[in-house]
Amino acid sequence: MDELIIIGKKARLASGQLAHLTSHKKNRILLRVAMLLEKESGVLLKANAADLEQAARMNLKGAIVERLKLSEAKIAGIAEGLREIAQLEDPIGEIEAMKKRPNGLLIGKKRVPLGVVGVIYESRPNVTADVAGLCLKTGNVCVLRGGKEAFRSNRAIVKLFHRAIDEERLDPNMVQLVQDTTRESAVAMMQLNEYLDILIPRGGAGLIQTVVENSRVPVIETGVGNCHIYVDEAADLEMAVSIVYNAKTQRPGVCNAAESLLVHKDVAEVVLPSIGASLKEAGVEIRGDKHSCALMPYAVPAKQEDWDTEYLDLIISSKVVASLEEAVDHINIHGSKHSESIITENYSHAQYFLDRVDAAAVYVNASTRFTDGFEFGYGAEIGISTQKLHARGPMGLKELTTNKYVVYGSGQIRG
Amino acid sequence: MDELIIIGKKARLASGQLAHLTSHKKNRILLRVAMLLEKESGVLLKANAADLEQAARMNLKGAIVERLKLSEAKIAGIAEGLREIAQLEDPIGEIEAMKKRPNGLLIGKKRVPLGVVGVIYESRPNVTADVAGLCLKTGNVCVLRGGKEAFRSNRAIVKLFHRAIDEERLDPNMVQLVQDTTRESAVAMMQLNEYLDILIPRGGAGLIQTVVENSRVPVIETGVGNCHIYVDEAADLEMAVSIVYNAKTQRPGVCNAAESLLVHKDVAEVVLPSIGASLKEAGVEIRGDKHSCALMPYAVPAKQEDWDTEYLDLIISSKVVASLEEAVDHINIHGSKHSESIITENYSHAQYFLDRVDAAAVYVNASTRFTDGFEFGYGAEIGISTQKLHARGPMGLKELTTNKYVVYGSGQIRG
Repeated sequence: MDELIIIGKKARLASGQLAHLTSHKKNRILLRVAMLLEKESGVLLKANAADLEQAARMNLKGAIVERLKLSEAKIAGIAEGLREIAQLEDPIGEIEAMKKRPNGLLIGKKRVPLGVVGVIYESRPNVTADVAGLCLKTGNVCVLRGGKEAFRSNRAIVKLFHRAIDEERLDPNMVQLVQDTTRESAVAMMQLNEYLDILIPRGGAGLIQTVVENSRVPVIETGVGNCHIYVDEAADLEMAVSIVYNAKTQRPGVCNAAESLLVHKDVAEVVLPSIGASLKEAGVEIRGDKHSCALMPYAVPAKQEDWDTEYLDLIISSKVVASLEEAVDHINIHGSKHSESIITENYSHAQYFLDRVDAAAVYVNASTRFTDGFEFGYGAEIGISTQKLHARGPMGLKELTTNKYVVYGSGQIRG
Repeated sequence: MDELIIIGKKARLASGQLAHLTSHKKNRILLRVAMLLEKESGVLLKANAADLEQAARMNLKGAIVERLKLSEAKIAGIAEGLREIAQLEDPIGEIEAMKKRPNGLLIGKKRVPLGVVGVIYESRPNVTADVAGLCLKTGNVCVLRGGKEAFRSNRAIVKLFHRAIDEERLDPNMVQLVQDTTRESAVAMMQLNEYLDILIPRGGAGLIQTVVENSRVPVIETGVGNCHIYVDEAADLEMAVSIVYNAKTQRPGVCNAAESLLVHKDVAEVVLPSIGASLKEAGVEIRGDKHSCALMPYAVPAKQEDWDTEYLDLIISSKVVASLEEAVDHINIHGSKHSESIITENYSHAQYFLDRVDAAAVYVNASTRFTDGFEFGYGAEIGISTQKLHARGPMGLKELTTNKYVVYGSGQIRG
């Protein structure tokens, strides 16, 4: 696809410039975009209104429209996000562990940008600003391919980046939006390994699976979260009720919300009715195995596929297990390696769970909802990686970099 | 392909056991294999002789046979390599930067195995022991798919691993050799994303390209090295002659050997004849641009493809450039992002080169031959990564691991 190749070539050129900007200059651009977002919020809202009108014509429903919709408050939040990114320490250029070797060579590991970052995402316009901001701060050119529903909003945001970059007399191609929002442009991006150093899909499981199976560009899988809470036989039951309620209902549409509940058989009779009552009150549909349904008569029977489902909604699956080992096995088979939590007061059970559960974040006695760059103390993130290579868990600035060995010699040759 | 799926399932099972072995036990296995290699060297040499006979029947030539051939000394070297791996610090289980968050959550980044590592390689049987040793030490199951030329030798080595693992009453499937050495088994490995966490091709550019283009498993590209030495106008010319000679001739068949020489026009007349004479004496064929050929009459004219060729032989390309910028551009276009060196006494030129050349290792005044796990002080390596994700440069133990966030709570819920 010609548009993508042209974008790729322009990205490579801009990358040479962006990679060597000072933090001072990068931060100035970020702060300027933040200001422009607020100053030009009228223009943004107008573009967004056109997107919303189109969505209405296409009969798009609830969650998509909600994510698509901008407001003065949301725009202020996006601007604030960019200001926060400007305040984070710039990781680029830092040299880690410079060491003198016995032969006198001085060898250090220098942190450098990845180069060109491609992101394929769906309907949230705020992703456009977040990704462009994080990439700019880390010296990476970004190629953004957002969903067609949000195209006008995305374009308006990218225009503000271009204005700020242009004011610094720099190459605006350091932030590029793919104009073609058909399926073909997403496929073409996956073949762009000559120009893209990394491709990050942000969206539903279907999108991510397609990218993993078809991309020649190295992919970071993000965001699918079939997260479990396991209530151990030694749990503080009051804590269990509170954590399950929080992990399921506090924000059900996000990847670190709980989707499945596992309860040890010895406490099921005592704790499941309480958990069930609190969830029911919040309007949560419970899909249970036989034992769960017997203890929570308002639950509906779970099907096999429920154990593998990320609902992103007020629904939870529930299963009574015979042992800690069964719970861990269930999680390792059905989980998506995102966030998993055990509720227990037993030391050995806690350590076993932390050791044996294979996931980006494993918790004892806390809600899975904390898996997040800000909550972990790393600042803004570009996504939560659920794979094992390069980055796992919240991906912040550092995860958008790579290293280069720099070697200072004085004529050394190898003997 | 059925064999691979069975291997994959067995690998996943073994992974659960291997990931939780103590360093003590892993080291005991490594030391035992080292002992067995020496004790059973007769068996190994017999298997190797059968491989060599087959190679002779197939009329295989020089370098392949050289790499394939074992000897008592080579076996002792392989055993020594395993003892060195046993002595390295085990990275698994280490928790980095455990921090208390304002809400009381204690969050740390724990180093854990990747899981199952697949390696596709060609004719060197020592790779079998090196890879199995590095993977075992890092708690990773390995699935080894070596070349058909070395199959009997590889099988004999893997048998010794199985014997040592069996003596500890552990699952021998933590080290597996693919029996099928046809092209189909390599292709099947690339589709094994359900069971393999990473796939590392070790071999020529053709193999690596095939894997990158076809693999659904995340790939680490290793080892293609079209490395340059740039002799700057401000070079110490004697040093330049010595470093070019070393980088080209000390071991021409390896990835960190120099394949291309760039010389600034202002010093070409003085230095090229000296460099050329020393290379000629070592039997190096020089393929030069017009200017190089004029200064070294024994050089042959370079074709366009020479600038992109990794010879792995006593051949070097040579080009006279008008400026440092031209040299850096040439390297960034034609290099393979492995190792690049500038010879200069000029401070700003050195810094410019280090900043602007995009490669795993960038040198000032030293031979590119140093890009190596041992030379860099990290110990044994599984390859030199020339890509930017996950690992760049020599891949040692740490690069065979990933992390998992462990979070100790006391009932925290998100507000």
